[in-house]
Amino acid sequence: MIAVGVNGYGTIGKRVADAVAAQPDMRVVGVSKRSPNHDARAAIELGYGLYAADPDRTDAFEARGIPVAGPISELVEQSDVVVDTTPAGVGETYRDLYEECDTAVAYQGGEDATIAPHSFCARTNYSDSLDSNATRVVSCNTTGLARAVTPLLEAYGVRSVDATLIRRGGDPTQTDRGPINDILPDPVDVPSHHAPDLQALLPDLDVTTKGVTVPATLMHLHSVTVSLDTDPTAREVKELLSDENRIELITTASGCDSCAEIQEYVLDTGRRRGDVWENCVWADSIDVTDGRLSFFQAIHQQSDVVPENVDAIRALTGEMDAETSRTTTDEALGVGM
Amino acid sequence: MIAVGVNGYGTIGKRVADAVAAQPDMRVVGVSKRSPNHDARAAIELGYGLYAADPDRTDAFEARGIPVAGPISELVEQSDVVVDTTPAGVGETYRDLYEECDTAVAYQGGEDATIAPHSFCARTNYSDSLDSNATRVVSCNTTGLARAVTPLLEAYGVRSVDATLIRRGGDPTQTDRGPINDILPDPVDVPSHHAPDLQALLPDLDVTTKGVTVPATLMHLHSVTVSLDTDPTAREVKELLSDENRIELITTASGCDSCAEIQEYVLDTGRRRGDVWENCVWADSIDVTDGRLSFFQAIHQQSDVVPENVDAIRALTGEMDAETSRTTTDEALGVGM
Repeated sequence: MIAVGVNGYGTIGKRVADAVAAQPDMRVVGVSKRSPNHDARAAIELGYGLYAADPDRTDAFEARGIPVAGPISELVEQSDVVVDTTPAGVGETYRDLYEECDTAVAYQGGEDATIAPHSFCARTNYSDSLDSNATRVVSCNTTGLARAVTPLLEAYGVRSVDATLIRRGGDPTQTDRGPINDILPDPVDVPSHHAPDLQALLPDLDVTTKGVTVPATLMHLHSVTVSLDTDPTAREVKELLSDENRIELITTASGCDSCAEIQEYVLDTGRRRGDVWENCVWADSIDVTDGRLSFFQAIHQQSDVVPENVDAIRALTGEMDAETSRTTTDEALGVGM
Repeated sequence: MIAVGVNGYGTIGKRVADAVAAQPDMRVVGVSKRSPNHDARAAIELGYGLYAADPDRTDAFEARGIPVAGPISELVEQSDVVVDTTPAGVGETYRDLYEECDTAVAYQGGEDATIAPHSFCARTNYSDSLDSNATRVVSCNTTGLARAVTPLLEAYGVRSVDATLIRRGGDPTQTDRGPINDILPDPVDVPSHHAPDLQALLPDLDVTTKGVTVPATLMHLHSVTVSLDTDPTAREVKELLSDENRIELITTASGCDSCAEIQEYVLDTGRRRGDVWENCVWADSIDVTDGRLSFFQAIHQQSDVVPENVDAIRALTGEMDAETSRTTTDEALGVGM
């Protein structure tokens, strides 16, 4: 069993902990938290050992009746792999600790790409991170693009990718982020950081990304154009993408013509928290004209990287190949609608 | 003086009436309205003769103390040109009346393209509608695309256009349209109707458009990619577009990094109703990589077609060339920030 610690029990961390606990070859050593809030209380109720991300604040947890198993250094020492799901830029501050403890680490996309020898998407470059001491799971949007582009690259060759990422303003709990009643080019500069981030996975890819932020919290929506080397039919592209386990083809006939409908559907089918691990590609949006492929996909910012983090753990231990890991992860989680 | 009637005194009609009244070579014969609401009352206060779009409902106006100058047929008879700003699809029902009165008409983009011999954008194909009995001013989004693409076509040649139109859910008064807290592919099918609409102006253009609807009311935002025949620098493209009077280059240094900031600015400078007649292209978004041009532009759905309608009136009368008409219109309105 791979012993896994989760440093940072927030939006991503809580989901990664549950996903790790569901795997046949992993166990959760514990999770860490900086503040004694309701997330910390929920972690205890779920049976996770709770470690203090800031050892000086252990008293604050105990004052609220939340038992602390120990300081973060103990969690790191006892883990084969730590998944660092601390806020963007904070992972860097734990780097020395991970190295001192000789514990492998999967950082998140909020960290600079230079934090690890490689960035990671299981479908795209799992083997780059095999048996490494660190990797970096790219952000939700970059993961979504990489999953869609990789099979297109393999099947048809890709000349260029142009994607407009229509981003939710914040997660449902981030009520102070805005915007309200506005549409923002965000950033105004082209390309957005997603293009170089995707190139960290696919260095030779010619890609331009544009970011837009709107008043919504549920999912991101990508409007993608891919210039292919060959000229497949829309039907062939649909078949190609439907063979991908982390891509779901959504039909308008199913009534899922918005992000809210997708969320409603996965909640109805019993997925806790409404997580959507898959890229949701609208089948009816797939159009190919003179080798120029267009489509829409919805990306759930809170959960699409969760299976990727599970695979990253296995890659770091070097004990499983990419396809076996992805299949194991997806079966344990129930990926595929 | 060209005698102009405005059939349909709503969002576009009220703006067209004011724009016509501001021209040195035009006069407003009157405007028509179906319901005796606050728009009708405002028309009277502004001094426009008010005609009953539905003669059977004249009593309803008089019951509210709103004087009616006559039935719509009288307005059409007295006009050299009627601008039909009735709701989408309704213009068709007045077609026989316009023909019986031998009155030229400018329809709006909500009508089917077959309603007139040509569709119209002043910068793109003014002369097609010269001395004609009918034309059709394309919708706000198509107008915005045509204005941006035409100079690019002339200067560099265009291989293909791919545009994602991130559309406001409704105008500020359309509070029942939604969406709330969602991002909709709208339509899911690719291309959206804007691509064939643009081809009604530029028949040889290879263009794909995708529509997305979001919870905002202020403006549309276009994310545009244009594959050019040549490879100009971003600076050259900025210079080209800044020479266009109906395109405004917005700099982030000005603080205008959202649609709301643009609206605030034009209201502050004294523009009634916050109208933005110009395409607002963010200068910092203009990027050219290997002849692939990317940029963002904001389009004001309520007003960008207003100067186009004024030019369409002149084209129909055949009394002025395109450039003189556009200059006259823009000077009278104050187009150009």
